[in-house]
Amino acid sequence: MSVPRIAFTPGEPAGIGPDLAVRLAQYEWPVAWVAIADSNMLQQRAAALGLPLQIIPYDPHQAPQPQTAGTLTVCHLACAAKVIPQQLNNANADYVLATLARAGQGCMTGEFAAVVTGPVHKGVINDAGIAFSGHTEFFAELSQTPQVVMMLATEGLRVSLVTTHLPLKEVAEAITYDKVLRVIEIIDADMKQKWGLAQPRILVCGLNPHAGEQGHLGREELDHIIPAIAAAQQQGIAASGPYPADTVFQPSYLAHADTVLAMYHDQGLPVLKYQGFGNAINITLGLPFIRTSVDHGTALDRAATANVDISSAKLALTTAIDMVNR
Amino acid sequence: MSVPRIAFTPGEPAGIGPDLAVRLAQYEWPVAWVAIADSNMLQQRAAALGLPLQIIPYDPHQAPQPQTAGTLTVCHLACAAKVIPQQLNNANADYVLATLARAGQGCMTGEFAAVVTGPVHKGVINDAGIAFSGHTEFFAELSQTPQVVMMLATEGLRVSLVTTHLPLKEVAEAITYDKVLRVIEIIDADMKQKWGLAQPRILVCGLNPHAGEQGHLGREELDHIIPAIAAAQQQGIAASGPYPADTVFQPSYLAHADTVLAMYHDQGLPVLKYQGFGNAINITLGLPFIRTSVDHGTALDRAATANVDISSAKLALTTAIDMVNR
Repeated sequence: MSVPRIAFTPGEPAGIGPDLAVRLAQYEWPVAWVAIADSNMLQQRAAALGLPLQIIPYDPHQAPQPQTAGTLTVCHLACAAKVIPQQLNNANADYVLATLARAGQGCMTGEFAAVVTGPVHKGVINDAGIAFSGHTEFFAELSQTPQVVMMLATEGLRVSLVTTHLPLKEVAEAITYDKVLRVIEIIDADMKQKWGLAQPRILVCGLNPHAGEQGHLGREELDHIIPAIAAAQQQGIAASGPYPADTVFQPSYLAHADTVLAMYHDQGLPVLKYQGFGNAINITLGLPFIRTSVDHGTALDRAATANVDISSAKLALTTAIDMVNR
Repeated sequence: MSVPRIAFTPGEPAGIGPDLAVRLAQYEWPVAWVAIADSNMLQQRAAALGLPLQIIPYDPHQAPQPQTAGTLTVCHLACAAKVIPQQLNNANADYVLATLARAGQGCMTGEFAAVVTGPVHKGVINDAGIAFSGHTEFFAELSQTPQVVMMLATEGLRVSLVTTHLPLKEVAEAITYDKVLRVIEIIDADMKQKWGLAQPRILVCGLNPHAGEQGHLGREELDHIIPAIAAAQQQGIAASGPYPADTVFQPSYLAHADTVLAMYHDQGLPVLKYQGFGNAINITLGLPFIRTSVDHGTALDRAATANVDISSAKLALTTAIDMVNR
């Protein structure tokens, strides 16, 4: 079996993304993983951290080799401006997007078996005059995927979302029969393919408190969610619900779930992050390739310091490896 | 010091409320607690459960005595129809409301130092043609309190809500400067009085994902929540935020919180119930009296069976006793 090659994008260079790359490189990995970033910046970050780092320039024509500890294969793309850790500079916004595009294109052509992403800073990219709402949307557009699904995962709990970064007042309108059904189908297909589950069990939340109480607290369950679950069941998908969000995250329910599908961001993620204690990752379902990510931000004030927790980055990389190997 | 007297309303007679009364009565209590219910129904429930129960008719003119194990003081109100456990009967809807009214009036006059409520079934009350949206609203109306606050509490975590049983699409509009500020003020006043805290620390959530990202994901934080927090701080209240809901339930935040204030039901309660494992209670703040409650429903299919968990009821009663003693 050939060794898989996985792309890693450290993201915002002033944040802790480069620290993650340098620290992950201190371990041995059973895959070839390729950081797509500015080589000099990574070398400087390693020096700032006092860690050894032997950079190997990436050559796509060489057979992929497992990564040895202390080495980092880098697909070099140059920053436009010198990187000062902890200081955002929108001159480097194009660079950040170029690294994502390189990774995504490599995934599309099969050069990379997966992409693992570090944190980007949306604000500094938007300040540079570039419309960017997140990795998930970026890769969806790059691969012309009309609907993707954001899933957060931690030990023992996976939460998927129907809507993601929407103002709360726009959420109810965004919950439609078609969308809920499509999201369930994507989860089912991806969990079969990427997790190797024969019959993924999807517990679907209601939109309203108490899942609407038969219409007393909102009609979206009756008009959209219940019919979508029924249609999924018709296809043989093990979706059930809708469950009240304050009931479904109980051990008696979770014991029979492969994922909980929440209708919106703050319905599902507080529990996941509470349970995960920072040890969670973000996975995009529905893309034509595997993408995992850290679940945290750029943590600017910790860049180039000893105070960086790499547990999410490690989990994102090991999860991608597991998926690739399936 | 005289012995306090606390009212207990078992609520829906076909559900597990009467079981809770019978089971709580198997313990000794340092207060006089008075079940407001149908004596015969309670005696029948005890017989069905095979538990001893000596009923003492309630006499408001007798000095309150600590409750001895195996006895239950009952303020008798008769059911209209015979109670068959597990079978709802809307003929008894008036009876249920009469027990609540009796308890609330007794609290208003000082006859009772607090009320602890068991579960009611809103559906069967509404089916009887009576508008009823919950205990909280019922006691607010009875005591002519314009704004009350629902708090759920479990070991190590308390969550308060700005809005409660509203369809999700109506939530954003309900979040106003006045309402958020008033809710913060009530929490501050009640936690000082009922918990004896000198300076309750209130962590306030944003309404939108990521607390709105400076207006990129909704403006309610900028227009309402941030100004309300500032006004509360001006009064010397230890309110802070707004925090993203998927960040605030982290140990580093919770270590410095007396309560988290969520903007709506499914933003705050999933974490609380996940953490509480069924061992949570509901407390109404802002009333002129103390009210605690179980946090669960009528569990009809468990009524009159051995399979009833009384931990929430016990915690509701002990919490009320603690508050009364302060």
